[in-house]
Amino acid sequence: MTDRRTEILTGAARVIARQGVRGLRVADLAAEAGVSTALIYYHFKDRAGILRHALAFIGDRADRYTAAEEGADAGAHPAGPRRLLERTLLLEFQDLPEVRENSTAWGELRAHSVFDPELREDLAAAGTAWAAEVAGHLAELCPTAPPGAVTAAAERLTALLEGLSVRWLSGLLPLRHARGLVREAIGVEVARLDSPSSRSSHPSRID
Amino acid sequence: MTDRRTEILTGAARVIARQGVRGLRVADLAAEAGVSTALIYYHFKDRAGILRHALAFIGDRADRYTAAEEGADAGAHPAGPRRLLERTLLLEFQDLPEVRENSTAWGELRAHSVFDPELREDLAAAGTAWAAEVAGHLAELCPTAPPGAVTAAAERLTALLEGLSVRWLSGLLPLRHARGLVREAIGVEVARLDSPSSRSSHPSRID
Repeated sequence: MTDRRTEILTGAARVIARQGVRGLRVADLAAEAGVSTALIYYHFKDRAGILRHALAFIGDRADRYTAAEEGADAGAHPAGPRRLLERTLLLEFQDLPEVRENSTAWGELRAHSVFDPELREDLAAAGTAWAAEVAGHLAELCPTAPPGAVTAAAERLTALLEGLSVRWLSGLLPLRHARGLVREAIGVEVARLDSPSSRSSHPSRID
Repeated sequence: MTDRRTEILTGAARVIARQGVRGLRVADLAAEAGVSTALIYYHFKDRAGILRHALAFIGDRADRYTAAEEGADAGAHPAGPRRLLERTLLLEFQDLPEVRENSTAWGELRAHSVFDPELREDLAAAGTAWAAEVAGHLAELCPTAPPGAVTAAAERLTALLEGLSVRWLSGLLPLRHARGLVREAIGVEVARLDSPSSRSSHPSRID
């Protein structure tokens, strides 16, 4: 990605996190990124193009700070699946400006899609990829659990995280308490996947 | 509540569900409710007053359709705590225009509070009351579980519901699948609360 494209998308994430998707005007974005509106239209065609690329950019950035932390101590202590799972789910809950901005912008794009379907496919693809990553760690942790039960647990854990994230970002839930609830949720789902009743009576698919 | 107040708040819920909180202009609301802007200011003082009363109105309406369904067959088959718990958590997921509008408006007020703290206290009070209701049913179902574990399970179930609701309303998750995930989540949390390890090793509070 060229520097100018990166600057525009960095600006878009910042504006969305500050003013919401409805508050994103191309003129404001141009001022924020220090470029002309013509350059923005040249790179992203229209407002929908900006939003779609901003979504991908914010998703990549979340992957990057997740990977950076995972890489930091991977040499000394290779992390097991439980640790990787906790990190994947907990990295959203960090009181760092970049993480908070990224989570706010992502949550706003998600909330906005209730009103406007233009990002639906991109959000669905991102959600599926994230749930698959969580399901991969769960399957490693609980190798005898039926795949359908693992998928459903991953869907619940990622949806729980989205619900808790809105509470945290709006000041309704302290960070530490949010992290504790997620850690316990992992324990509750893993206990269920490991239990014999999960293997005998758990439906392989819900619908 | 006078008819005019009710008409204004019904209109506010409709406008918020259609255009979001940022799209709520007092002039549009006046047109929607068929009243003058002066009457709106007379009843609710300012835009913040409208939002606060709209939040309470939307919450009451959700309670009312929950209670109506509970009352419908209470005479013939008194519902046990598991049934009451499922209803409390599943009534948001109904494909009825009133329920969809109510859930959309409530979710939007919640999402908006990430950007604007004015509704924080009201949302916190509503969230606490809802989690307490869920915890009450859980405590009846699992009488030997420690209160702290019951509260944490209730917080998770309500946050999960909020996360799933956004996915459903934005067309990312089919209704039936959302309901299945909630029902399973109740099963997973109840199994954990009923297990001996919940009583011996479960922390009574998370933070």
